[in-house]
Amino acid sequence: MSVVSYDLNKSPIGIFDSGIGGLTVVKAIQAALPFERIVYFGDTARVPYGPKSQVAIRKYAADDTAILMRYQPKMIIVACNTVSALALDVVEKSCGHIPVIGVLKAGASMAVQVTKNQRIGVIGTQATICSNAYACAINELDADIEVISQACPLFVPLAEEGFVNHPATKLVAEHYLADLRKENIDTLVLGCTHYPILRQVIGETVGSGIRIIDSAEAVALKTSELLTESAMLNRSQKASVPHLLVSDLPQKFSNLYQLFMGSEQPDVDLVEV
Amino acid sequence: MSVVSYDLNKSPIGIFDSGIGGLTVVKAIQAALPFERIVYFGDTARVPYGPKSQVAIRKYAADDTAILMRYQPKMIIVACNTVSALALDVVEKSCGHIPVIGVLKAGASMAVQVTKNQRIGVIGTQATICSNAYACAINELDADIEVISQACPLFVPLAEEGFVNHPATKLVAEHYLADLRKENIDTLVLGCTHYPILRQVIGETVGSGIRIIDSAEAVALKTSELLTESAMLNRSQKASVPHLLVSDLPQKFSNLYQLFMGSEQPDVDLVEV
Repeated sequence: MSVVSYDLNKSPIGIFDSGIGGLTVVKAIQAALPFERIVYFGDTARVPYGPKSQVAIRKYAADDTAILMRYQPKMIIVACNTVSALALDVVEKSCGHIPVIGVLKAGASMAVQVTKNQRIGVIGTQATICSNAYACAINELDADIEVISQACPLFVPLAEEGFVNHPATKLVAEHYLADLRKENIDTLVLGCTHYPILRQVIGETVGSGIRIIDSAEAVALKTSELLTESAMLNRSQKASVPHLLVSDLPQKFSNLYQLFMGSEQPDVDLVEV
Repeated sequence: MSVVSYDLNKSPIGIFDSGIGGLTVVKAIQAALPFERIVYFGDTARVPYGPKSQVAIRKYAADDTAILMRYQPKMIIVACNTVSALALDVVEKSCGHIPVIGVLKAGASMAVQVTKNQRIGVIGTQATICSNAYACAINELDADIEVISQACPLFVPLAEEGFVNHPATKLVAEHYLADLRKENIDTLVLGCTHYPILRQVIGETVGSGIRIIDSAEAVALKTSELLTESAMLNRSQKASVPHLLVSDLPQKFSNLYQLFMGSEQPDVDLVEV
């Protein structure tokens, strides 16, 4: 085994998101690959990306990748659905030779494997849904699948405000998902990293017959396959805490991290974008 | 009359906000002073300011002021409550000699004039409420007044999503305002420029005995007084459309402008921050 591949194995996985939401991906990666080192960047100074223009989002994607590249990651996971939808090529170009996995393609691919009646629902932010990127990714894999999309802009603020079991969230879910329920879908993709936090109310609202795809779990599965196939798994058997970077309010991120991950309050570094 | 003061009279009023919310101030200024020229800047690339750090907000305040200063305004109105709370001194320093009015002091001052039982409620974003700036501004005018504050983070996304008469908004308002109702206040300040859009549901929830202070109306009144006193009113009798600038998504702003203002869809210029 060469020194280069040995170093690569010990290199961290770089993960970025517009803010806190990508921690659902960190959690899924830790569960699937407990010995991998992780560097996470949350662009909390410019969150949310959802309502911004494509030009702005592509610039942010290049900035975010450059920050992670300082840590020489062996691969990059784009935990942000908006960047996965509108700027994955920017990330690929900015990071050179290393592999890039976006939550969007991972979620789309799992949904295609799971559906039996070829009818898939997708929910996400306004920008993700308007980009039509999930429908494109799904139809690239199987052109016969019908994709029904619905933007749910209030789900992110509701999740961040902790309205997980609040009746208002149930009403908002009814508002967004009532039409989707009539569409006879058998699979629903949570096309935003915040949505797993509201998974229960979303599941109850669409009904029990529908399989819910959490893109964070899908991306962890795909990462595990990629690292195994390319012999890049870390052979150390020592779990390490993620290295956390944000562009604003590290203390707030640290508090939210504790809530998201149910772990000790971590150190969070501030970086400039 | 000197040339300088003549030019000043014809100069525009500069108004800025983190995004679209400040249009409630534009509307109030137009109603009170229909012949004044207005230059409005909405920092849509970096909206929202509410959850950002004080360091970030102070930098944004300097940037926003610099953009308006290119148009040689005769005064600046800070339509953003967060900047009014945390960085009004930055605006004053960045614009040199011209007068600056912030929504916060204007709203606080009107509330002090209106209250009879010396108990005032204030609602706003997390950043505005945590800064305690309304309570300070009110107690600077009258130290005996009791101020009861409540952050309502979901009101902005609900307003922007058009959930004006939605039952979910009523439930969220109940959630935020239930405790406030027990506090025997007689006056409630809407400490966020978006909140006038939800004025009806807020009013119904707190009950009819409470006088609601819209900071946009307060700032228009104060502006009118200032321009009259300093002989800076525009003597032209020709109403003009506001000059609109944003840092991202001018088309989306133009659409929302139409909804906010009930007027024709305007031209909106893109500027870089």
